[in-house]
Amino acid sequence: MRIVELTKEAKENILENLLKRSPNNYGQYEETVKDILADVKEKKDKAVFEYTKKFDKADITAQNIRVTEEEIEEAYALVDDSLVEVIRKALANIRDYHMKQKQYSWFDTTPQGTMLGQKVTPLEKVGVYVPGGKAVYPSSVLMNIVPAAVAGVDKIVMTTPPDAEGKVSPNTLVAAKEAGVQEIYKVGGAQAIAALAYGTESVPKVDKIVGPGNIFVALAKKAVYGHVSIDSIAGPSEILVIADETANPRFVAADLLSQAEHDEMASAILITTSKELAKKVSDEVDGFLKVLSRKEIMEKSLENYGYILLVKDLEEAVEAANEIASEHLEIVTKDPYNLMMKIRNAGAIFLGEYSSEPLGDYFAGPNHVLPTNGTAKFFSPLSVDDFIKKSSIISYSREALEPVHKDIVQFATSEKLTAHANSIAVRFE
Amino acid sequence: MRIVELTKEAKENILENLLKRSPNNYGQYEETVKDILADVKEKKDKAVFEYTKKFDKADITAQNIRVTEEEIEEAYALVDDSLVEVIRKALANIRDYHMKQKQYSWFDTTPQGTMLGQKVTPLEKVGVYVPGGKAVYPSSVLMNIVPAAVAGVDKIVMTTPPDAEGKVSPNTLVAAKEAGVQEIYKVGGAQAIAALAYGTESVPKVDKIVGPGNIFVALAKKAVYGHVSIDSIAGPSEILVIADETANPRFVAADLLSQAEHDEMASAILITTSKELAKKVSDEVDGFLKVLSRKEIMEKSLENYGYILLVKDLEEAVEAANEIASEHLEIVTKDPYNLMMKIRNAGAIFLGEYSSEPLGDYFAGPNHVLPTNGTAKFFSPLSVDDFIKKSSIISYSREALEPVHKDIVQFATSEKLTAHANSIAVRFE
Repeated sequence: MRIVELTKEAKENILENLLKRSPNNYGQYEETVKDILADVKEKKDKAVFEYTKKFDKADITAQNIRVTEEEIEEAYALVDDSLVEVIRKALANIRDYHMKQKQYSWFDTTPQGTMLGQKVTPLEKVGVYVPGGKAVYPSSVLMNIVPAAVAGVDKIVMTTPPDAEGKVSPNTLVAAKEAGVQEIYKVGGAQAIAALAYGTESVPKVDKIVGPGNIFVALAKKAVYGHVSIDSIAGPSEILVIADETANPRFVAADLLSQAEHDEMASAILITTSKELAKKVSDEVDGFLKVLSRKEIMEKSLENYGYILLVKDLEEAVEAANEIASEHLEIVTKDPYNLMMKIRNAGAIFLGEYSSEPLGDYFAGPNHVLPTNGTAKFFSPLSVDDFIKKSSIISYSREALEPVHKDIVQFATSEKLTAHANSIAVRFE
Repeated sequence: MRIVELTKEAKENILENLLKRSPNNYGQYEETVKDILADVKEKKDKAVFEYTKKFDKADITAQNIRVTEEEIEEAYALVDDSLVEVIRKALANIRDYHMKQKQYSWFDTTPQGTMLGQKVTPLEKVGVYVPGGKAVYPSSVLMNIVPAAVAGVDKIVMTTPPDAEGKVSPNTLVAAKEAGVQEIYKVGGAQAIAALAYGTESVPKVDKIVGPGNIFVALAKKAVYGHVSIDSIAGPSEILVIADETANPRFVAADLLSQAEHDEMASAILITTSKELAKKVSDEVDGFLKVLSRKEIMEKSLENYGYILLVKDLEEAVEAANEIASEHLEIVTKDPYNLMMKIRNAGAIFLGEYSSEPLGDYFAGPNHVLPTNGTAKFFSPLSVDDFIKKSSIISYSREALEPVHKDIVQFATSEKLTAHANSIAVRFE
């Protein structure tokens, strides 16, 4: 891996390079996506089946678009029992963590007869998109469905592209069933997002669409935003490790590679105060590259977006970490808790040398759907919050309104909204 | 107002008619907006000044784009002291309510040495857009700024279009100052959204942009979504009143008109079980129309999107209210609390006959920036939640990881992510 001293200029170049990966930079596909959306909105199922034939080579009809109970049973027969057990253990942890995110309705009263409050209601229908193709991630199925289920969503439907035989990966089906999906439809790409946003004869319209996908899926989600809600737009995966001389270089190297293997756009960065560690991590990376299976992807992503950055102190490391706002941040220093307090922008923060990033991807409980590409500055991990909405509650008695009614009339009148003023005044005429 | 029996068919037509008002239906302006965004991104201040000259007829330069302390003092001199007092009373209520929305970081530990948690951090920089032109709403300034201030945002900047003389409404400036804005810039429209999203020599780049605006502002916000965060996209205002025979027709009529006066796209709907009330409300509306100042707007919006809907019982009323998912919902029945429990979709719910909608617009405390156009099915009122983000915290000791490490390795291996598996395995080799 390249080892670079983190000057101001180097930092600016790196930040710019990382942002190149943003899904905001793929405007050239917008027209294609728009056409697909318009087509599905108008021709519904017919368009869905045509695009599925075109892109996935599968013959999907109204008869076979929905995954049957038999297909799910078949899937269980194909998946190792021990993997099902692991999925269940992970699920229990994920549920436990997300239960702690639950928000409750509240209200507050005064003896004058006012009640103000906030009512929390789960969303009614949610669509979860699950990618197919080269990468099948049951863990991602769990992470997208559990927060919706914990929030109390009535109906969780999933869509995923079929293979050319019209099949869905058994691991995906088992994970979906375990997590509590009610309906699964075999459709992928922008056409799946359109079907969920507008509804077709076969696929129900939902209130919110979540889940990762390729650039077409990302652009389609952005295009339907406002018509339905969406989760934040996912970019390529990232890891940033802050380490000092106490870190184990072998662990750090392994963790960097765990994100580099995702795809060629993934980014793996180490920021360290120790030149010695930098060298050792680089050597360990080279060693692992020789034995790990996804060598080519890792080499490419390290070449494009991998860095070992040398800083003079941990203050500088924290500053850079806050600017990069990484999806995953590992802190492997003498006192990781102390440093964590200074971290402002990160999707998930892993503390200490046994808190390896994949622990979070699969098992610990917090969601692995995290803001990428600098969006940790303003977006949060996927959570139960994403599957509820709130309504304000306002109740005033005559006795409570009377002493303030003239103030409200004055405020409304100052905005020239005379019918607003009238609606207060009329109650005391 | 037209009185319609709420058949299934009538409901479908009304829902379709209401959705016509959605900002999602103004694709024809997208290209214009895109050009403005690209222009400001590239030419920064220069483009901002050109568009301000073109659209607002104002000569704005780097020297006068930022509102000065003197301009704010001038504004105070021009605003009635009694209005400043009213603004302060409203502010105190708005702050009180939003303080109750604050969310806190939490963590949870086990004796095996695991800590999982969620860290809450305020956004660093937020941009508040405030419309100018024909409608100046200081109340909206308060409602957008207070939740950001309560969340603890470091820097709150505001942009608003100047008039042809390069001035900003004194009421707006006073409200902004009282609410705690740090910087105010004289720029409006899509060019303001671009400036806040990308930054210019004069206007700082922010992490999130909130605030209402015309269709160009709405489309610009949607276009920059993902690059920065935005609040939900605002559509025209709406009121839905559920009333039975116990309601005061004069109050109901006044409340319907309070939203109808906003603009010709606004919607005002009464759903009632009482034919007698329906008739009386219609008569009261006619009476008010004769005396209120914004007659033409109200007539137009009632003609387009105003309805009195007759239902056979309150169950039916609730069902329709949940489908319409109105921005504002008033419940004026014998037992409004009982009905409120059944409401699933509404921005703000007003209970009882003294809880007039404008009480919420100006004074009670809950935010008046609410989801419109059916989006209350999945969006929430603007709140402190909009100005924070969360980071997951994960810490596992060796003792905690050891007993589960094989499970994680198996899960990662099943996804063919061998470098993920390696990063766990390497810790126990």
